Amino acid sequence: MSVTEVDLHKLKINDPFLGQYQQLVRDVVIPYQWDALNDRIPEADPSHAIENFRIAAGLQGGEFYGMVFQDSDVAKWLEAVAWSLCQKPDVGLEKTADEVIELIAAAQCEDGYLNTYFTVKAPTERWTNLAECHELYCAGHMIEAGVAFFQATGKRRLLEVVCRLADHIDRIFGSGENQLHGYPGHPEIELALMRLYDVTQEPRYMALVNYFVEARGTQPHFYDIEYEKRGKTSYWHTYGPAWMIKDKPYSQAHEPLSRQTVAIGHAVRFVYLMTGVAHLARLNQDEGKRQDCLRLWKNMAQRQLYITGGIGSQSSGEAFSCDYDLPNDTVYAESCASIGLMMFARRMVEMEADSQYADVMERALYNTVLGGMALDGKHFFYVNPLEVHPKSLKFNHIYDHVKPVRQRWFGCACCPPNIARVLTSLGHYIYTPHKDALYINLYVGNNAEIPVNDGTLRLRINGNYPWQGQVKIVIDSSSPITHTLALRLPDWCTNAKVTLNGVEVAQDIRKGYLHITRTWQEGDTLLLTLPMPVRRVYGNPLLRHVAGKVAIQRGPLVYCLEQADNGEELHNLWLPKESDFQVFEGKGLFAHKMLIQAEGVKQSVADAQQKTLWHYDNTPSSRQPQTLTFIPWFSWANRGEGEMRIWVNEE
Amino acid sequence: MSVTEVDLHKLKINDPFLGQYQQLVRDVVIPYQWDALNDRIPEADPSHAIENFRIAAGLQGGEFYGMVFQDSDVAKWLEAVAWSLCQKPDVGLEKTADEVIELIAAAQCEDGYLNTYFTVKAPTERWTNLAECHELYCAGHMIEAGVAFFQATGKRRLLEVVCRLADHIDRIFGSGENQLHGYPGHPEIELALMRLYDVTQEPRYMALVNYFVEARGTQPHFYDIEYEKRGKTSYWHTYGPAWMIKDKPYSQAHEPLSRQTVAIGHAVRFVYLMTGVAHLARLNQDEGKRQDCLRLWKNMAQRQLYITGGIGSQSSGEAFSCDYDLPNDTVYAESCASIGLMMFARRMVEMEADSQYADVMERALYNTVLGGMALDGKHFFYVNPLEVHPKSLKFNHIYDHVKPVRQRWFGCACCPPNIARVLTSLGHYIYTPHKDALYINLYVGNNAEIPVNDGTLRLRINGNYPWQGQVKIVIDSSSPITHTLALRLPDWCTNAKVTLNGVEVAQDIRKGYLHITRTWQEGDTLLLTLPMPVRRVYGNPLLRHVAGKVAIQRGPLVYCLEQADNGEELHNLWLPKESDFQVFEGKGLFAHKMLIQAEGVKQSVADAQQKTLWHYDNTPSSRQPQTLTFIPWFSWANRGEGEMRIWVNEE
Repeated sequence: MSVTEVDLHKLKINDPFLGQYQQLVRDVVIPYQWDALNDRIPEADPSHAIENFRIAAGLQGGEFYGMVFQDSDVAKWLEAVAWSLCQKPDVGLEKTADEVIELIAAAQCEDGYLNTYFTVKAPTERWTNLAECHELYCAGHMIEAGVAFFQATGKRRLLEVVCRLADHIDRIFGSGENQLHGYPGHPEIELALMRLYDVTQEPRYMALVNYFVEARGTQPHFYDIEYEKRGKTSYWHTYGPAWMIKDKPYSQAHEPLSRQTVAIGHAVRFVYLMTGVAHLARLNQDEGKRQDCLRLWKNMAQRQLYITGGIGSQSSGEAFSCDYDLPNDTVYAESCASIGLMMFARRMVEMEADSQYADVMERALYNTVLGGMALDGKHFFYVNPLEVHPKSLKFNHIYDHVKPVRQRWFGCACCPPNIARVLTSLGHYIYTPHKDALYINLYVGNNAEIPVNDGTLRLRINGNYPWQGQVKIVIDSSSPITHTLALRLPDWCTNAKVTLNGVEVAQDIRKGYLHITRTWQEGDTLLLTLPMPVRRVYGNPLLRHVAGKVAIQRGPLVYCLEQADNGEELHNLWLPKESDFQVFEGKGLFAHKMLIQAEGVKQSVADAQQKTLWHYDNTPSSRQPQTLTFIPWFSWANRGEGEMRIWVNEE
Repeated sequence: MSVTEVDLHKLKINDPFLGQYQQLVRDVVIPYQWDALNDRIPEADPSHAIENFRIAAGLQGGEFYGMVFQDSDVAKWLEAVAWSLCQKPDVGLEKTADEVIELIAAAQCEDGYLNTYFTVKAPTERWTNLAECHELYCAGHMIEAGVAFFQATGKRRLLEVVCRLADHIDRIFGSGENQLHGYPGHPEIELALMRLYDVTQEPRYMALVNYFVEARGTQPHFYDIEYEKRGKTSYWHTYGPAWMIKDKPYSQAHEPLSRQTVAIGHAVRFVYLMTGVAHLARLNQDEGKRQDCLRLWKNMAQRQLYITGGIGSQSSGEAFSCDYDLPNDTVYAESCASIGLMMFARRMVEMEADSQYADVMERALYNTVLGGMALDGKHFFYVNPLEVHPKSLKFNHIYDHVKPVRQRWFGCACCPPNIARVLTSLGHYIYTPHKDALYINLYVGNNAEIPVNDGTLRLRINGNYPWQGQVKIVIDSSSPITHTLALRLPDWCTNAKVTLNGVEVAQDIRKGYLHITRTWQEGDTLLLTLPMPVRRVYGNPLLRHVAGKVAIQRGPLVYCLEQADNGEELHNLWLPKESDFQVFEGKGLFAHKMLIQAEGVKQSVADAQQKTLWHYDNTPSSRQPQTLTFIPWFSWANRGEGEMRIWVNEE
């Protein structure tokens, strides 16, 4: 089973829900982020990212400013622009992007090296601090941008720049005597070089990924070697000098990947690394690395994943904790980590079609990834808590990383452009075209043309997902075409039904996908019915933070209580086991979104401030009925600051 | 109403429970800590505290080692020795103490200055960094030791040393033109000088306390002035340079005390400061400061106090958070803070007899203070959580400060000697002799002689508190004496009964004390019956961390579930509302201690590791009956590492 390489970004999204998001990205997010990269957003942390390239290109004087990985914000923006141009041509935007690309080309050194931090600030220190300084990370993002721009527009300018960069890196790194035997502190180059391999078929790029992956975590440890060599200087001091070098699990570099058994360390690094490894394992038919992927995916998905598709349960190190340690209020769950999780899941489905990967992909997309951006497209969450008590955020330092509302931009602005690029490249996630079947993972409305063995399969998906469970898939190919369509049956759905031209199809379900093999005719219509009752979700008994609590889910969407609808002190609300749910369409901000209500109970807080902290024995507690209103969690915090919680007391 | 100054440390404790603790302090803790101070405990962080004095005294060469406040460990040890000698003479121990005192005297400078850190390490930097460097804190502890040693033994040697030190401080600090207009970063000198005033009646000492209290938090801010003056050097860097100077609420120095409305900042600093202020307010009849005490006590006790008598709900800054933010697992609740809370409560009862203060004092003593020390007297908690999940402690940094078992000693060893000194000076807490009545706060077995208006009241308290609620108070004065005894009726007791010579006494209850005025005859016997049913305790509805949960209390003791009795995954245990409790005496480690059992329910965790993280809808949950065993919380973690929790799910 191998994946057909297809330009899936070129399909047309016309989904009533995610289509709006793509339009928001085009109309608001991309222009807004362009302003941000050029420091034109008042009240936001300055970026200086474009300025850095101008200085590096010698077009103006000045000092580098920003994070050591500031370049990557420009690269991610360019990638979002590339995908966006596939959706809707925009001459002005393409011209701006071409100018940025020329600027990047001008900032590239003679030997192919490209990084404004080192070029401007520390030209003699190139490649001396892989553990801390994100050079390969920035290179990776630039390579991704180059690949995307080529795939989207056919223009080779940036692709050539990044090939020169990749060739430079390939000369510097490797097992040769005069090469650096290193690998990045922050993985990203691996997944990027695999994408570059996809478009160039240059075997050196894949071999280099293999080198980076296999060198990782070996002894003597490269981070220590380079640390000694450069005189023990350290760039990051957040948790004390050289912590990033010493804390090797943080970078998944404490031992070779083949010996690692749990998802560990910085969550974004982990999923970026594994995205590259899964891609490599498939193309290299590397059974060892395939097993690494299966093993580490399993640990992550079965023991360290939030119901929201968030990963990374602690702020310190933006990192995983241990199995089943998933606090709801002190969680980190970085937006970028869930984007990386989608990327990892995509590569896993490509490696082997199993709906468990797409289930997680969908969970991450419709909950944490969408939730990372405000409905206005101009405010972003870096951290995505499942429970917030704003009063305590200001005083208790365990919440220092948590914001009760989305922010305009960040000093470390990795998340906003990452959301933009993933939302504009949904085609790669909707479809996984294996040789033997076209796997349909997500039911996002779109028109697609997908080359299959003996022709081109034209099809369109229509529906009103995730609000309604009716999905129509219509074949538009003008000539008959024999192929298998494999429809994902979501994990949240118990009684999916599929008809073909009105006749129920046989339930040939393998690894969560319903397979239909046929010579498809124009007009063939599959009707997929995914009933979406409101479902109560309960925690595994090893999840101590949700014992006695219930979460509400409908379709792929996790719901939550918010103060704006339910008042303060959400911990005093109880949802009886027997309460029924009403589903209805919201208004205003919630127009076209389905909200949920149920009859609940509220423990009275009247005079609570006058009372003692505790009271003895079972004084009859004063409780009143109260209607509980649940909103889709991704849409919380769009009405100002207030309490929020997903896991609700049940009785 | 004013307090009679009485040598309450000289009474004899013969309590079957706390008497054992005093014996443990004498036989184990004091010798153990002496070894620690002399670096003779293998596997423990070195102290070097005695060595520092030897170097400062010029008796040997070498460098200062340890915390900037290392001297205070010696002072607290000496105070514990002083009180211990009152309980049981020990010639050898007294000789050792005398030698230490001579060593301290030898380390004192000509001008009265006494601090080994500055004398050895930075003699030119005396009094240049009040905000950070604990000079007045160390001085305060030395003064307390001097007072205690004088009160306990009548020996004046250390008292004279500390009077010279106090006089030196009095010359340095004040509103005079050539004086420093400063005050300590860490309060302690205030409460110590008040004690020194008690024994010397030197008005300068009380005036100096008044100066320190009133200068605190005024503008321009002294911490900033001295920071500028010394060229912006900073001693502590835990949370970034000069954080201790900048974060003024940390030291309760953000504004004058008269304007402060909430307990804030470092919890130990807060209660140490307020202990001195309450003492000062009473003796100075200062209504403003009395109001400060009442207001800040109320905030602390009604909104920021744990059921265990712990204070300080966050690790960062070892500090208070905000009203009603009392997490059970990430709590700090330093042992020293609860000791300081007892001291504050004592001064409040002295200021105005109201049992609410003694209720908190008792709660702190029988729960957090006792819990701070292992039953072997050789291991200590610095942090006292109400819930521990050891597996997660190792991985999630929000638990970095929490230890699952008590440690042998600490680099910052403030808590162990503090526990020793409070357990040896219980007399001060048991009785509060006001002019108009003798207030009995705690029912600890003892024999006491207390001077009252027209003679000496001899009395003894017998019982088996806190295990049994029968307390006998017998008058031993050989000649009749007219006075009022005021017996505290504990907040946890609903139907206390008191008989005098077998006849029930009238219920003249004022502010929680039952008053009995009489001409007491030898042999008069009060029998106080405090029924101790097992009680369920519920949280104020504003306490979000305990919603739906119940705590178990019997008498003053808070109970908990421990893994050793109840297995892993304590969050899966439920206590039904209707379950009855069985109280029984434990065995082994729990001999003479009452344990509690109840029929509960356990959510099955069978195969949980094979299951997904969540499951949909109400699959019939597999639950089995399980007997829940509760142990007194102070005695947890004496059987190795395991889970523990106080607040249990109720259904």
